[in-house]
Amino acid sequence: MAATGNSVLTAELRLDVQEFYFRYAECLDGGRLQQWPEFFLDSCVYRVTMRRSLRRGPDEDLTFMNSKTAMLDRIVAIGRSEDYEPHAQRHYVSNFRVQAASDEELRVQANFQVLRTFPERRTEFFVSGYYSDRIALMDGRLNFREKLCVLDSDVPPDSLVYPI
Amino acid sequence: MAATGNSVLTAELRLDVQEFYFRYAECLDGGRLQQWPEFFLDSCVYRVTMRRSLRRGPDEDLTFMNSKTAMLDRIVAIGRSEDYEPHAQRHYVSNFRVQAASDEELRVQANFQVLRTFPERRTEFFVSGYYSDRIALMDGRLNFREKLCVLDSDVPPDSLVYPI
Amino acid sequence: MAATGNSVLTAELRLDVQEFYFRYAECLDGGRLQQWPEFFLDSCVYRVTMRRSLRRGPDEDLTFMNSKTAMLDRIVAIGRSEDYEPHAQRHYVSNFRVQAASDEELRVQANFQVLRTFPERRTEFFVSGYYSDRIALMDGRLNFREKLCVLDSDVPPDSLVYPI
Repeated sequence: MAATGNSVLTAELRLDVQEFYFRYAECLDGGRLQQWPEFFLDSCVYRVTMRRSLRRGPDEDLTFMNSKTAMLDRIVAIGRSEDYEPHAQRHYVSNFRVQAASDEELRVQANFQVLRTFPERRTEFFVSGYYSDRIALMDGRLNFREKLCVLDSDVPPDSLVYPI
Repeated sequence: MAATGNSVLTAELRLDVQEFYFRYAECLDGGRLQQWPEFFLDSCVYRVTMRRSLRRGPDEDLTFMNSKTAMLDRIVAIGRSEDYEPHAQRHYVSNFRVQAASDEELRVQANFQVLRTFPERRTEFFVSGYYSDRIALMDGRLNFREKLCVLDSDVPPDSLVYPI
Repeated sequence: MAATGNSVLTAELRLDVQEFYFRYAECLDGGRLQQWPEFFLDSCVYRVTMRRSLRRGPDEDLTFMNSKTAMLDRIVAIGRSEDYEPHAQRHYVSNFRVQAASDEELRVQANFQVLRTFPERRTEFFVSGYYSDRIALMDGRLNFREKLCVLDSDVPPDSLVYPI
């Protein structure tokens, strides 16, 4: 296997990509949902799908949003919802693969595992899968242009209230 | 989100920070408890707390030690204890966030997940959470000045014999 | 603890090592088993053992292969087997430790955790442990010379059809 030999991909940028995902996860795990859309471009796509549904396209997605406005609406809805029990998430993001890199965009895949903890209960496994994302590079800043979360299991999770 | 632009934080140092945590975990997972205090300054703090207890301060900690001597005493006590069943830990440390960096100190957070395995049994989930640490930088060496382990669950683990 | 001070180990190479493992895991998790042997030298060793069996040597291994040809044979056998139920793996590789580095070879350890998902079922924990590997460096390319997978549990997994 050849080592990565892309001139755009300096060690600094490779680490910045990792940190970008870690900041994203920190935002969600810390419950700061209002800041979640800030990781995306104004014009963006956020999808959650299951491995098996992937080839059937967006119609089969568990979640599909195609603007920052839709994401903000979702956040407000979560705050108002009485249908779910508040809990904390813990993301583990690893196995980063930069699949393509230009001066303006990176295509990145990474594995995720999310644990969750309800009050007064033990921590439990929630979902696992991989991200397959397009990240815009602009003036040294990273933003998701497209974020696709592919869950490993074909059994839909009991709830997808919080973003993954 | 802006990429990290701190001149102290070279790619090498960012990787050294990750490796420092990986060496710490290697020490614990390999059962070399006698070497655990070596990752700390002589004057140091080691705490384990639960998410909910965090805001109540050190009095609510599950574990609180404020010197290397106390840590060494603990290690000796573990060796003598008959109250626990020996087992192996496996740490997964990821999602590193350098929250502040000067020439002398780094403030670092990272997620951890610890699995454990008792003899003749299958591996099981033990605890998850995040570290919130102060790391002293001296002559290219890293040492914990303060290590705070925040567990995700409010249900205390059945045992906290080994360090996290 | 001293930070790594090895001149061979540039930030780029340290990240390349991580990426090498992530590509290896991507190959397995994507079900592209035919490409698995490409991560190894022609003359190589691949072993899976349990922590307790480690000191007893290769005779106690769960899996032992000492050539790329043996690995290719195994892949063909998997394709023909009716003894197992197809499923997907998801690797989480972290806690990288470069234990020795020369111009020609790296000795690397890393922790792994493998989840697996059978069709129509929820994702479950499969195995955890650590890799203890020798990686050949040639013309900027990385290849396993020796890959040793040490499982944490002494209870053998119900199946080791797929490579770890």
